[in-house]
Order: sequence, then structure tokens, then C-alpha cells
Amino acid sequence: MTESSKKSPVNATVSDVAGKVVTLSGWAIGVDLGGENMRGAWVSPKGQLFDPIKWETRVGEGKEKVLNRMVQLVEELLKNPPPNCDPAKDLLGVGFGIPGILHIKKGLVIQSPHFPDWKRFAVYEKLRKKIKFPVFIDNDANAAALGEKVFGVCKPYDHFVYVTLGTGIGGALFLNGDVYHGSMGMAGEIGRITVDPQGAPESTGNRGSVELFASSSGLQKMISDLRERFPNIRANNVEELYELWKRGNKFENWEAIEKVFDDMGNALGIMLANVVNTLDPQAICFAGGIVHTWKAFSRKMIQITMERSYVARHNKLRILCTSLMKNSNFIEAGVVGSASLVFIDAARKQSSVEIKSVKAPAPAIAGAPLKAVAGATAA
Amino acid sequence: MTESSKKSPVNATVSDVAGKVVTLSGWAIGVDLGGENMRGAWVSPKGQLFDPIKWETRVGEGKEKVLNRMVQLVEELLKNPPPNCDPAKDLLGVGFGIPGILHIKKGLVIQSPHFPDWKRFAVYEKLRKKIKFPVFIDNDANAAALGEKVFGVCKPYDHFVYVTLGTGIGGALFLNGDVYHGSMGMAGEIGRITVDPQGAPESTGNRGSVELFASSSGLQKMISDLRERFPNIRANNVEELYELWKRGNKFENWEAIEKVFDDMGNALGIMLANVVNTLDPQAICFAGGIVHTWKAFSRKMIQITMERSYVARHNKLRILCTSLMKNSNFIEAGVVGSASLVFIDAARKQSSVEIKSVKAPAPAIAGAPLKAVAGATAA
Repeated sequence: MTESSKKSPVNATVSDVAGKVVTLSGWAIGVDLGGENMRGAWVSPKGQLFDPIKWETRVGEGKEKVLNRMVQLVEELLKNPPPNCDPAKDLLGVGFGIPGILHIKKGLVIQSPHFPDWKRFAVYEKLRKKIKFPVFIDNDANAAALGEKVFGVCKPYDHFVYVTLGTGIGGALFLNGDVYHGSMGMAGEIGRITVDPQGAPESTGNRGSVELFASSSGLQKMISDLRERFPNIRANNVEELYELWKRGNKFENWEAIEKVFDDMGNALGIMLANVVNTLDPQAICFAGGIVHTWKAFSRKMIQITMERSYVARHNKLRILCTSLMKNSNFIEAGVVGSASLVFIDAARKQSSVEIKSVKAPAPAIAGAPLKAVAGATAA
Repeated sequence: MTESSKKSPVNATVSDVAGKVVTLSGWAIGVDLGGENMRGAWVSPKGQLFDPIKWETRVGEGKEKVLNRMVQLVEELLKNPPPNCDPAKDLLGVGFGIPGILHIKKGLVIQSPHFPDWKRFAVYEKLRKKIKFPVFIDNDANAAALGEKVFGVCKPYDHFVYVTLGTGIGGALFLNGDVYHGSMGMAGEIGRITVDPQGAPESTGNRGSVELFASSSGLQKMISDLRERFPNIRANNVEELYELWKRGNKFENWEAIEKVFDDMGNALGIMLANVVNTLDPQAICFAGGIVHTWKAFSRKMIQITMERSYVARHNKLRILCTSLMKNSNFIEAGVVGSASLVFIDAARKQSSVEIKSVKAPAPAIAGAPLKAVAGATAA
């Protein structure tokens, strides 16, 4: 511990991410790169954010300029460190969560849906040369899963699957105490799992994958179909459909609305059963833009998962929601997750042991707006 | 290396299972426990078998007696060691492949389909006390997968899924250079994956899982249905149906027979696509009793896997058959796999590195009767 960090009240905290309790001192910077915006902040070992910044990504300007903006964002944060924090002594490193397929060992972005010109782009090497602190990169879903392990509801688990319900459905696998990347960095593409073999054909070549039923883009299509059949259902998107659902069955055509969420839950249930039968995880953790409709789809999802998965019934699978959801327009899983890349490395170095289970799950960010827990017996 | 092993021509062999080439000396004993029989043999570091024994299991006599017979089988083998092999110096250990759900860390058989009285049975501790050599246990499918890594077609791979097509469909996951057991020892239950959500209900609570279409018990049901519709198709089991299939389309009602194998391939394709999208493995390896019908179902299976899995197309997935299939009534994957539990431990201790990729796949057992390789481009 440095002299500076001893003085700092936020540095000398305890982070029990690594089997035994590890006292982490120092800060991390987390940067979450998205197609529209990039966000960054100082993150304390308690998961507190300091000096958050949100900049436009400007994909159209090309990969080198986007990368330079990422570096400039870090430089901007470095100009304004937290109180009693001397970056030269107290900054453990900078973590970047990047969308797309990454080859971690080679430090490459192989390809990225939002960044068409990022093909085998040597992101790590370029960032490392321009930033005078240790640099860590990973896929954004993997970083978010790590955030859940270090600061969120997944603290107690060595084996969990992290599922993001957004425009698409993404996933990350945390197995044996570490993110599992697969052979090419593509592990966790669970949104492509087939849940209706005769379903509609998709651009990926598959048909009837779970994304058609449970991503916001898939639900948008289902809502359009619904409105054609029931013009009085005036919902334009998932949020508005959820508002109508909450009115309950006194609303005309409520059953038709309920069926959309039941179909969503059924599709997610088949997907989860397949994943759980394959991996035997301790927990599933949901996050992402449309997780707030949890009440509408989760009952059916849990029922189907338990019916279809002998493993889920046997291992008393926990089905959870993130405790790191955005509770303002800024504080969100992405930045905390990216910073977790730094903290988990620091914890490993300090304890020289693998990340192991800890006893009590204690969400580090107060006021988490959404937290639902369903055990096997609750189904 | 002991003085004795230096003299032995079979001991001083090279086994390149662990990143760099590791010279393994010594022998292992492998014991494969099945519901009907238990088999055991001395196994050399080249995968050669010596003094194979096959005994009845006699499940009905109860777990303690079955366990004692396993120990007696090992004692029988110890009485007749290979030439120039002094068990006290040259036996690295005894590996047991056991069907069912095992808790490896606790050394328990949690439950086992063939052994109804094995509930939380402390197999490891009992075997360890009775056998004066290092003892290793694992689920039989996991042991067979390890055999394929140490001696078979999976030598070059750090990430593969092993699939057994038998009475049911079993699986084992080899991830990051090691067997992945899951949180409760149940990882790899891929036979329970849903491929037809509206399919027939099953005793497990699921409906339409892949076992209905591609296990020998599932195919038996499909053959019964087929014979009701086409009485001239006089096949009683998968083997006989395959013989009719081989006659080609000059056989009357051949299309109906082809459809059974197409349905099998389609179901396996959906299952594989789901597994590959989840895990991004380098290879899939098939083994088990009905793999010899490969020519009849594999074309459809590979086509569907590639259509439905973006990951499989991207990572150039290899779809392989075991090179360790039985080529006599004795030599089979089970015993070699159980012995591999011993060899992989020895290789790890000797090299002190994780098991990593090796360059050339060289099946150690000559005369493997079945070997088919399909690359992504062959689909």
C-alpha cells in the first residue's frame, strides 16, 4: 500500500473477490465503448463511480479516431482524479469493455457489429502504447459479467451465466472462477440458440432463435404483428407494451399482450434449459435494456426452465437480476464491469489464488433499482 | 525414472499431452464400470492394453460388493503385470470411469442410473483405502473424453465437446485444457437439449429433447413407428435399419428409411449448433454404440450445424469421430479413458504446466476402425 493510499478514505477498502478477503487499495478507470457513446469513470474498490464522462463514439470517423477518443477520454479522467488519489501511485490500471468478438491473447478485435472497419484491429497494443498505466480489454458482455462477480449479485458464485437482454441477446460464461472465452473469443453466443426449429429465417442463417422472441428487436416485430390484429393496443415498443401489461386483465385484449410476454418467457426458458443442461452453472444473471419487464416474462421463463432442465432442478439453479443496473443516466454495468477487469487482476496478483467463492452476496452499489431472485423451488 | 522403467521397452515412451513433449514412463491401470460389466486392463503410455479382464458387475448384489469386485479386479491385474513392469515402481495409479453424477472434489457418486443404491456413495475414499496406489475417479464420459485427448483424435485441441451416442446421449466438456465438471458434476447433459419444443413428453419433464431422435432408445421407437407404416421394412434395431439404408434407393421405401436418419441428423445438428454457439469449441468428437451409422446421419447433421451456427462457420469447427472405438470385443474407449485419468495427472506433475495444444493428431491405437473428419468447408 502506498503512502498516498493509506491517507485516502476510499482506497483502503476490503474487496472479497478472491477466496479469502483481499484488501484492495487504489482505483481503476473503466471505459465502456458503445456504438453511440463511450463512457468512462474512476471506480473505487467499492464500486463507487467518480467523475463520469460520456462522449459520442462517432463510429463514422473511423477506427483510429475512435481509438484516439478513447485515449483522450482516459486523459481527461486523469486530469481530474478523485480526492487524495495520486494517479501515478493509486491507479491500478484502465479497463476497456468493447463490443464484438475479441481475441484476448492476441489483443485483437476480430470483428464488431457496431464498428464495421474493426477487423483484426490490434486494440490492445495501440492502447497500451498510448496509456502509461496497465491496460485490460475484454468483450463488453464479459466485462459486465466480471462486474457482477466483483461488485454484484454473482459475488458468491464460481459458475454462472450472464445474459443481456437488449437489441439482441448476449451472454458471458463465468466458469471455474474465470470468464470462459472459448476457442475464438465467441463463447456465450446464446442469443443464437434455436428455440423454434420451424421459426422465421434470420440473417445469420439460423431460424427460430431466441432473439426473435426475447430481444427488443424481436419484440418490436411481435408488437407490430400484435397491433395489426388489435389496433386498440397502442404500444410502440416494449416499454409501452409493459405499461399496458401492468394494467392487468381489466384492459381489453390483455390476454394478447400477456401472450407476447409468455412467448418471451417460453423462449428464454428453452434457451436457459439448454444452457443449464450443458453447463450446470450455479446461477443465471440477467441484465440489459429490457430486463425491467422481468415481472411480465420471468414467471413463465422460470417454469419452463425448471420443467425442461433436470440439471436446473437438481442443482437448485438461482435465476437472478443484476444489482448493477443503471439507476441514473450514467451509473451502469458497463463502466463498473470494465473497471472490474482491473480489480480482478489486482485481486489475483495480491492473493495469488484463483478467484473463489465468498460467503455473502453484498451489492456494493446502493439503491439498485431492480433485484429479483427466483430459486428452483419458487417456480 | 526408476531403474526398472529404464530397462522396460514399453515404459520409456513419449507422450506429448502437455504442451511440450513429456516423456511418460510407467503404466496405468484403467477400470471402466458399466451396468452389465466392469472391464480393466494395464495401459501403457502409448495406449496399448495388457491383460484385459471383463467381469460381470452384478448390480443386484449391492454397492459394497460391487465396489469390492472393482478392487478385486485391480488385485487380479496386479498379480499379472506386463513384462519388465514392477508394479511397486512402475504403476502410476489406477483410474476408474464410473457412470452417473460424481462430485469430484468430495469423491462422491451422487447418483447413477445403473446403480440405484449409489446415493452420495463415498467411492473415492473407499477405493483409496483398499488400493495401495494413487486412485483417480471421474464420470465415464469425462474419462472417455480425456482418453480422446491423451490418445485419440482430440490430441490437438484445448476446447472440445465429446458426444456419446448410445442408449442415451451423453456429453463431456473439455475446456481450457481440462474437463469441465460444472457446479455439481452435471455439465455436459447435452442429451437433454430441446430440439423440438412441441415434441413428445419424456420422463425427465422435458419434451422433444435430442435423445428422442438420435439415441438408440429413441431410434428404436422411430423404427417401431416406421414398421407400422411400412411392414416390408423388416428392421428390428438401428443396426438392421442401417443395413437397409446402405442398400440405397433401389430398396423399396428407402426414402422412409433415409428420413429416419435425416431426422436424426437434423436433431443432432440443432443440438450441436446450440452447444457450439454457447461454447465456441474447436472440435466435436463423436463416440458410442451407434456412431457406426455415421454415413447415414452425418451429412444432414453437419449441414444443419453449419446453417444454424454462425460460431461453427466462423471458428471452422471440426466434427470428428473417435479413433478409440472398440476394434475387438474388448479394446474400447472406457478402459483407455479411465487410464488417461492417471496419465494426464502424471503429465501435469511432470511438466508443471497446463495441458496445451500439440501439433499433430496421431491416434495411438493402430487399426482404428472408424474415423471420419468433416471440416466446416465440407458441409
